[in-house]
Amino acid sequence: MRKVRLGLKKCPYDIIIGSNIINRLGRVTDKLNLGSDAFIITNPLIKRKFGKAVKKAFIKSGVRVKFRTVPDTEKSKSVATAALVLTDLCAYDIKKKIFIVALGGGVVGDLAGFIASVYKRGVPYIQIPTTLLAQVDSAIGGKTAVDLKEGKNLIGAIYQPKLVFSDVAFLRSLDLRQTRAGLGEVFKYGIIKDPELFAFIERNCGKILRRDSRAMEHIVTRCSEIKAAIVSRDEKEEKGLRTILNFGHTAAHAIEAASGYKKLNHGEAVALGMLVACGISRRLRLLDGKTEERIEGLIKAAGLPTQIRGVNLDRIISAHYHDKKFLGAKNRFVLITGIGKTRITRNIPLKIIKDSIKERF
Amino acid sequence: MRKVRLGLKKCPYDIIIGSNIINRLGRVTDKLNLGSDAFIITNPLIKRKFGKAVKKAFIKSGVRVKFRTVPDTEKSKSVATAALVLTDLCAYDIKKKIFIVALGGGVVGDLAGFIASVYKRGVPYIQIPTTLLAQVDSAIGGKTAVDLKEGKNLIGAIYQPKLVFSDVAFLRSLDLRQTRAGLGEVFKYGIIKDPELFAFIERNCGKILRRDSRAMEHIVTRCSEIKAAIVSRDEKEEKGLRTILNFGHTAAHAIEAASGYKKLNHGEAVALGMLVACGISRRLRLLDGKTEERIEGLIKAAGLPTQIRGVNLDRIISAHYHDKKFLGAKNRFVLITGIGKTRITRNIPLKIIKDSIKERF
Repeated sequence: MRKVRLGLKKCPYDIIIGSNIINRLGRVTDKLNLGSDAFIITNPLIKRKFGKAVKKAFIKSGVRVKFRTVPDTEKSKSVATAALVLTDLCAYDIKKKIFIVALGGGVVGDLAGFIASVYKRGVPYIQIPTTLLAQVDSAIGGKTAVDLKEGKNLIGAIYQPKLVFSDVAFLRSLDLRQTRAGLGEVFKYGIIKDPELFAFIERNCGKILRRDSRAMEHIVTRCSEIKAAIVSRDEKEEKGLRTILNFGHTAAHAIEAASGYKKLNHGEAVALGMLVACGISRRLRLLDGKTEERIEGLIKAAGLPTQIRGVNLDRIISAHYHDKKFLGAKNRFVLITGIGKTRITRNIPLKIIKDSIKERF
Repeated sequence: MRKVRLGLKKCPYDIIIGSNIINRLGRVTDKLNLGSDAFIITNPLIKRKFGKAVKKAFIKSGVRVKFRTVPDTEKSKSVATAALVLTDLCAYDIKKKIFIVALGGGVVGDLAGFIASVYKRGVPYIQIPTTLLAQVDSAIGGKTAVDLKEGKNLIGAIYQPKLVFSDVAFLRSLDLRQTRAGLGEVFKYGIIKDPELFAFIERNCGKILRRDSRAMEHIVTRCSEIKAAIVSRDEKEEKGLRTILNFGHTAAHAIEAASGYKKLNHGEAVALGMLVACGISRRLRLLDGKTEERIEGLIKAAGLPTQIRGVNLDRIISAHYHDKKFLGAKNRFVLITGIGKTRITRNIPLKIIKDSIKERF
């Protein structure tokens, strides 16, 4: 079991990583004094797979457990679902000391975090991420959100969990496409911060795709360390430090929006978005072609897309009014000058952005 | 124009108080760099009365203005209304730098603050309170909320405004009952913190009920100072300092809940709740009968109720599951030992609480 500390001044917390550690969950939460009743938000599939083990771990520590499932779809990240879950939570929470548990991937994590942030002006919650994407990214850092019809993540708060508990054994239940999606974010950490991690993935791509425990423990730990270091210095994205985590995401959001959030999943869109950012970096003479090829090679090796298919180019370019970083007169991109070296650049000529997107068709 | 500073470390802000100062609003907000577009949440009545003046003040400063009205009822403090307003806000907020304005009483202030807190993980907002209750209490301190069917203020956040702008000329539009309701909270400040304020109200009760500008400016300023001092030292109600602001509110919440939030308004319930707290204080030999009579005398002079009518005693006692301060095995009350002197007391024998409520029938 490894421990990464997210050292925020006001609300520091641990990220625990290990393989087959779920039975030790209660011992960890015991010390946090979270409450007597866990209100576990999850989806039916995850509940079927891991619900029993989680329940057992809590009960062993004298914590009562109540599951509330939401459908396994992005649609669950809505105000309407949040209101329904809040009503149930409130009906359950009579003369108890409750805390919230997010058991699942990004959708459940964002929704449960949002619910915890607004219920009674904030109750404690913990994240038990079950996907690679959630373990390396969305469960860490306190970004919580629900969507509006008009756009994703438009409603939310930054509200930190009391614990992130990542059992990499859970990742065995992922299908190959979900695993690859998570890898998109893992590559991102390597590219923006850690040439060694990048090289590790290059060497161990096969093992990772097979979800080898040791390899997964290593990459989840390293990604958690990187994210924890960034978030602890810039929790609310005020100092521009947290911004580098958006590497690849600006174009990815536009690609996802243009596809109506179908066809491509988030990790696939991020892979394409990183390649667009590499293209912009090259055109601005920040990045050499060799490094770009190395990145593209790894994305290919992981089975992630390097070409945009089934999405309309014009729609990508006109998409995403609400992301002011993109294609406004005042755009802003996270670019790279090499593996592990970022540079935030503003007011990039639109032609360069468009050409870098076109190139991926 | 008077200025009270709410000196929070991370997000300090001013409370501006004056009579007929709305035309100076733009000059004040100019310095705050809030944005180019004001999204003003208000109700139809307030918009009719003050909308023009507020709009004029903003436009003079080059700020565009969009009004969004919600019905003038507690029902507007719902998740459903919040979702509708958020959707409109999002449709309006295209290529703008928006900020939110709460123009109205407590309902509008709580709703607009909640919307500002969750939209895009937080956008700036200002409070322009138009009722006495909002000017002295609810607009200050960043408590934002919407209700669930199961109870009031169950959903929300502590999220500070960038400015509170209190024009006491607005208070002229209040009817006598609303003015009295606000006075309930004003008395509270005198009783918990300021014998001089209490004596001022005793001397000037007639003037205040007529909403004399000078008298109103004085009491709104003094109450703002007291609340600002408490909130700045205990923003999130973690240190127990902010707790004393709940004087009279524990029983008031139970009385309001038992009446189904009809019959009595919040200020009237607080007046009764303060008398219940005085009764408990006397029974615990903390408070002498003379001081209690003085408080009851002032409440009577203001035309606020001193007897509970039309609400069932048993329902008060069984009410309010969600307020753990009340009537649980571990109750907690803010009591007084004299005017200006509070004492927080736990585990009061239930009989004493019940007797103190019964006495008000």
